[in-house]
Amino acid sequence: MDKMAFNPMVRFRVDLSRLCSIGPGKIELLESIGRTGSLTQAARALGLSYRRAWLLLNDINRSFGEPVTLAKMGGHLRGGMTLTPVGKEIIRCYRMAAREIESVVRSKLQSIADKAVMRGPPHPGAPRKRLARRLNGW
Amino acid sequence: MDKMAFNPMVRFRVDLSRLCSIGPGKIELLESIGRTGSLTQAARALGLSYRRAWLLLNDINRSFGEPVTLAKMGGHLRGGMTLTPVGKEIIRCYRMAAREIESVVRSKLQSIADKAVMRGPPHPGAPRKRLARRLNGW
Repeated sequence: MDKMAFNPMVRFRVDLSRLCSIGPGKIELLESIGRTGSLTQAARALGLSYRRAWLLLNDINRSFGEPVTLAKMGGHLRGGMTLTPVGKEIIRCYRMAAREIESVVRSKLQSIADKAVMRGPPHPGAPRKRLARRLNGW
Repeated sequence: MDKMAFNPMVRFRVDLSRLCSIGPGKIELLESIGRTGSLTQAARALGLSYRRAWLLLNDINRSFGEPVTLAKMGGHLRGGMTLTPVGKEIIRCYRMAAREIESVVRSKLQSIADKAVMRGPPHPGAPRKRLARRLNGW
């Protein structure tokens, strides 16, 4: 069969405590805030509603002992926002872990990745993919 | 503040190919089938409907080149089911990766885990926890 280089796409979520979990959604939001300097623009870049982004951010802020973002006062951008050192540290640690986790997955799951179906079935693949996403279990 | 031993609860999902992803939901289903010898009982043990369990299993079977379970013919248990060697291999590899990933997370996320809120807020924690789950982003 056609073996392909196995470049796993891994998503992981960690419960840091009973009241604090982080996963790709929250990390992508923080990264987007860091890039855009604004919660509105960060939400738009990720295809989230402002409300959902605000709730996510609020949840992150509440689950750490200190704020992960700061509102920028003044300036021409209403609602400008920057990451605090803690916010940056959360991103840095998560991404560092993600790189190592990808390497673990590459070595440990190679044998089953070789068995995974690589090509779409004869019938159109799109609905299957949607099904897979819907069924993924979390 | 009160530092606690950091025993991270990690959940991860891997796209093994464009058409094949595995995550904790599918692995728990396979493990439950292995334990109970029946899809009906496996679904019940996980609090899934039979239909949802069947769809999940069907998705796993389709995304690997060979079946991960076999129906047991005969016997007094209608719908008895066993794991194939491939099914067992998927569980084994995933759990092996999970153990290493937990060790990566323990070492890389310790510093931010130390900052995570350990205790509930003064107001009841239950709605917060539900919110956190709902907002988790995947």
